[in-house]
Amino acid sequence: MEEKNYSIDPVTEELARKAEKEGVETLWDRKKAMKTPCGFGEQGLCCRICAMGPCRISPTEGKGAQRGICGATADVIVARNLARMIAGGLATHSDHGRDIAHVLHMASRDGNYKITDEKKLLNLAAEWKIQTENRDIYDIAHEVAEVALNEFGKPFGALKLLERAPEQRKQVWEKNQIIPGAIDKEIVTIMHSTHIGCCANAEDLIYKGMKGSLADGWGGSMIGTELSDILFGVPVPRETEANLGVLEEDQVNIIVHGHEPSLSEMIVLAVEDPELLQLAKEVGAKGINLAGMCCTSNEVTMRHGIKIAGNFAQQELAIITGAVEAVIVDVQCIFPALAPLAKCYHTKFITTSPKAKITGATHIEFEEEKALASAKQIVKEAILNFKNRNKEKVFIPQAKSPAMVGYSVEAIKNQLDRVVNSNIDEIGTLKPLADCIVSGVLRGAAGIVGCNNPKIKHDYGHIELMKELIKNDIIIVTTGCAAQAAAKAGLMSKEARKFAGKGLERVCELVDIPPVLHMGSCVDISRILLLVSELAQLLQVDMSALPVVGAAPEWMSEKAVSIGTYVVTSGIDTWLGVVPPVTGSATVVDLLTNKAEDIVGAKFYVEPDPRKAAQQMIERIEEKREALGLSLAEAEA
Amino acid sequence: MEEKNYSIDPVTEELARKAEKEGVETLWDRKKAMKTPCGFGEQGLCCRICAMGPCRISPTEGKGAQRGICGATADVIVARNLARMIAGGLATHSDHGRDIAHVLHMASRDGNYKITDEKKLLNLAAEWKIQTENRDIYDIAHEVAEVALNEFGKPFGALKLLERAPEQRKQVWEKNQIIPGAIDKEIVTIMHSTHIGCCANAEDLIYKGMKGSLADGWGGSMIGTELSDILFGVPVPRETEANLGVLEEDQVNIIVHGHEPSLSEMIVLAVEDPELLQLAKEVGAKGINLAGMCCTSNEVTMRHGIKIAGNFAQQELAIITGAVEAVIVDVQCIFPALAPLAKCYHTKFITTSPKAKITGATHIEFEEEKALASAKQIVKEAILNFKNRNKEKVFIPQAKSPAMVGYSVEAIKNQLDRVVNSNIDEIGTLKPLADCIVSGVLRGAAGIVGCNNPKIKHDYGHIELMKELIKNDIIIVTTGCAAQAAAKAGLMSKEARKFAGKGLERVCELVDIPPVLHMGSCVDISRILLLVSELAQLLQVDMSALPVVGAAPEWMSEKAVSIGTYVVTSGIDTWLGVVPPVTGSATVVDLLTNKAEDIVGAKFYVEPDPRKAAQQMIERIEEKREALGLSLAEAEA
Repeated sequence: MEEKNYSIDPVTEELARKAEKEGVETLWDRKKAMKTPCGFGEQGLCCRICAMGPCRISPTEGKGAQRGICGATADVIVARNLARMIAGGLATHSDHGRDIAHVLHMASRDGNYKITDEKKLLNLAAEWKIQTENRDIYDIAHEVAEVALNEFGKPFGALKLLERAPEQRKQVWEKNQIIPGAIDKEIVTIMHSTHIGCCANAEDLIYKGMKGSLADGWGGSMIGTELSDILFGVPVPRETEANLGVLEEDQVNIIVHGHEPSLSEMIVLAVEDPELLQLAKEVGAKGINLAGMCCTSNEVTMRHGIKIAGNFAQQELAIITGAVEAVIVDVQCIFPALAPLAKCYHTKFITTSPKAKITGATHIEFEEEKALASAKQIVKEAILNFKNRNKEKVFIPQAKSPAMVGYSVEAIKNQLDRVVNSNIDEIGTLKPLADCIVSGVLRGAAGIVGCNNPKIKHDYGHIELMKELIKNDIIIVTTGCAAQAAAKAGLMSKEARKFAGKGLERVCELVDIPPVLHMGSCVDISRILLLVSELAQLLQVDMSALPVVGAAPEWMSEKAVSIGTYVVTSGIDTWLGVVPPVTGSATVVDLLTNKAEDIVGAKFYVEPDPRKAAQQMIERIEEKREALGLSLAEAEA
Repeated sequence: MEEKNYSIDPVTEELARKAEKEGVETLWDRKKAMKTPCGFGEQGLCCRICAMGPCRISPTEGKGAQRGICGATADVIVARNLARMIAGGLATHSDHGRDIAHVLHMASRDGNYKITDEKKLLNLAAEWKIQTENRDIYDIAHEVAEVALNEFGKPFGALKLLERAPEQRKQVWEKNQIIPGAIDKEIVTIMHSTHIGCCANAEDLIYKGMKGSLADGWGGSMIGTELSDILFGVPVPRETEANLGVLEEDQVNIIVHGHEPSLSEMIVLAVEDPELLQLAKEVGAKGINLAGMCCTSNEVTMRHGIKIAGNFAQQELAIITGAVEAVIVDVQCIFPALAPLAKCYHTKFITTSPKAKITGATHIEFEEEKALASAKQIVKEAILNFKNRNKEKVFIPQAKSPAMVGYSVEAIKNQLDRVVNSNIDEIGTLKPLADCIVSGVLRGAAGIVGCNNPKIKHDYGHIELMKELIKNDIIIVTTGCAAQAAAKAGLMSKEARKFAGKGLERVCELVDIPPVLHMGSCVDISRILLLVSELAQLLQVDMSALPVVGAAPEWMSEKAVSIGTYVVTSGIDTWLGVVPPVTGSATVVDLLTNKAEDIVGAKFYVEPDPRKAAQQMIERIEEKREALGLSLAEAEA
């Protein structure tokens, strides 16, 4: 078999070949058709912010245009473009968090959306000083929702959830004047400051980006996660399977793809509806098989064990199996290419969000007010499409991997303490994890997150990095498309501990976990922040002191830029496997990969080779261990 | 003398030659150095929204890449880029409006910021159903400020000021589901919808842009104007002078440049400070001469008659006179190029806003809490710099033009009614204006606004268009850099009525106004909206029915894109003199220049030749007159 060399995942390779045979296009074909990307754009040296241009700055000093028509230098243009990428990502997570808050605000005892985790709701209410005694839980929920909604637009005051960070970290933010206020305001201020004729100071633009990014990680994203848990339940460890082999030949296959759980939770309910199951039987199917893609998949697999069909780069391949009756999407990371592709097969491509209509798709607006009814209508469309499946075009790869998912912070604590104190029923602490790190049984932890990007061989960046790190006793937490890569590669099965170093292997054995922990969707990187924050507070150090690193080996979206920035701004060194469009400015490169450490105690590393990145991360972790060993000794003295 | 051919303004030509002689760079030099602009960027076919690219779509169908790597078509890429330009402009005006609301919130009887127009405050309080009886005016002001601030971030409900539009217009917005909620949320939603993998439907993206733009014109901008009037006074007609000839050889020359009046109002006070005037004498100057640039100039000339130094393209030339001690700026439309340029002369280039630091400038942060003290410190810097002036480098052109400025809606009403009913002291109505239009003495009205752009000969687009229109009995209202062009060209002097057609000339004579009315800064285009809205309500028709047109002959900023869109979305046809970056999509071009009329009753015209544009506008006005004549006749019947 010819090796396409797009992916390390054989399923992906197989289906890419099927696509070629059937003459349909995938992202790799479009990547090829694009030829050499624009060098100005790649380096961040292109400015389209006003209509005097577009302007392009020569990357060679002293040759060609050195300033835009307004006089903006390469530094300014690069930094402005970067700040706007952060604003784009931050806005996307803000809008996600806001939508979940609106869903909480409409939750009711007899409605479609109910409170699933009262305890988490009460904790958050207490944190926000909301009266809880003698009140109906839904009244409390609605007030919590209102307070959350105001976090996006309140005219005064700092973002509330920042309070969760360690004191030392808050001081760093305070000192650098990067404590954000209302989430949306931060986005608007970045857009304003990057307008023609505003901020023309690269360093200041980076500070603005950092400030904004905190409103993502500790704001929009964290609100999204917290309120999703309250509504749909805090994830707990459960089994699932991953890769396109989860599709079933004799069932109606439905893929949920996108991001916000408000849609997918209802689809999960709808596919269990007896009438719809009956309808599926009537059309000749043995049942309805729901599988997920991208972050929607992470949301529903964490809470219901719904199978993972694949990650970002595989969205077209799901349709190319010829076995998918419907791809149902809401927002973000959905290829517009799915629309013409779906027409080459029988697949119904259904958009549901007013924020993300796609030309050529069937739009069935998902109305939260009548959520389950909307979901049932959408599922019905899929079932009725089963008859149109062309059996000759069907090819479902066999490969799929078992995986454990659902490691929320609460679940990790519980799992850890269950070992230490087996009759504990309450949520435990991170003390055992801290002990393992302090003792050196675990050398540290890495958060590996992010997308797929055809600039990197599919899943290679994620998997190589993960394998190298676990081999070196570094435990991994992961979200997003990185998490799905791990699941598909088998790194989330408990058996994967055999790939780990002795220390991590022993911990996995004792605590009964895989070496790579699925922590959710991209907004759930807020869970990683809280994990690190709690660990830091337990050890009485700043987050930046911990032997903890982050990586986005195959990132591609603006969300990833925002995430990377808030992770660094939270004190965690972050490795990027794809070069960001900043190389046109030595000043910006220096700020991000060097000076940032003086400012926020962490910085970016850019290393496309995951093995080299792993070595750098291990070194950095050992450096932190050494420094921390000293500071711990001092604390003990 | 060699003709540089940059500008129709001889002062600009003279100083551009001085720049050349002295070997300093101007925007025209940088425009030249930029050579041919990127064709992909110019057509809107370049996408840098995610890091799979940058992607470039071939403008030739069937040849080269036809879709981005995600599958986005030319239509989608063009529409996304346009929507983001709107978001950028909208964000800029939102942040401006918010800042003014914060200033109102800190206003106090014994502070630097006071209430100047209690009547306007009380009217707005009544409109917003805020209790006013038996309350201190500052209590009322603070509550009005809070309500205003919440317009930027409230979780529920529609934008309040939209209520001011005619019923028919509101129905158009309602029908098309483009009624915006909180201002900042609209920006965030556009940023979200344009993120990779969200909205991929050009038409829907244009709707989103239209919805967002309304949150500028009837939101951020209108709040900025309303609250500025409350704080600093509703403009009334007053005399001023315009062009760089306003600089004084024997005085300390200070230029205020930027946008928000909170800074410039304090500078106006500071330059009248006896101690500072004394200091000016001590350094050998006869006084302190304050002049304005760009919209800051419009703000202070409207309220204090402060002289207009020039518009956007002249900002460098002010420094090149060698006679300016300080250019003091806040936000927007400030060339980063001023920093290196100022170093070639003795000029101090002082930035004051945390939102707009500029590398190479002196940053003296303007703190609203101690506004006058901050302003005095800044002015003092300028005075102390007088001694560094190099007399050999000084060249102040002689040309300047007298101009009448300050035509707020209130002032226009007053001026009109004063003629009809000479003892009226109260604010009048627009009835006389409506009568003139209905009778045909005036054929219609045109709002001519916007920037300078080196793609159009400086001021030529504005002035040619204005001259053609007034010759044809079309009265002109103008703001921004267009207004300054008119002032410099003498079209704002009462004598300019001689350039008008017989009808307009007679009206100008009777009412004692120039044929081109200065309505303020770019945020004050909200005044034009209200003028048109009131006129429509008076005639009981929709805004789109009136013989009223808009134009931005030399636009360049994202703000202008947002403005153009809200003007069209408010039912007013708008002419652009610079081609927007949308030509890569026939769909988007058709939407903006054709289908928009079916949607919102108005559309864009793109015509770089101002004379041709004028003819089109006249034709359009006559069409509207014909249609309106019928509907009026019906209404009377």
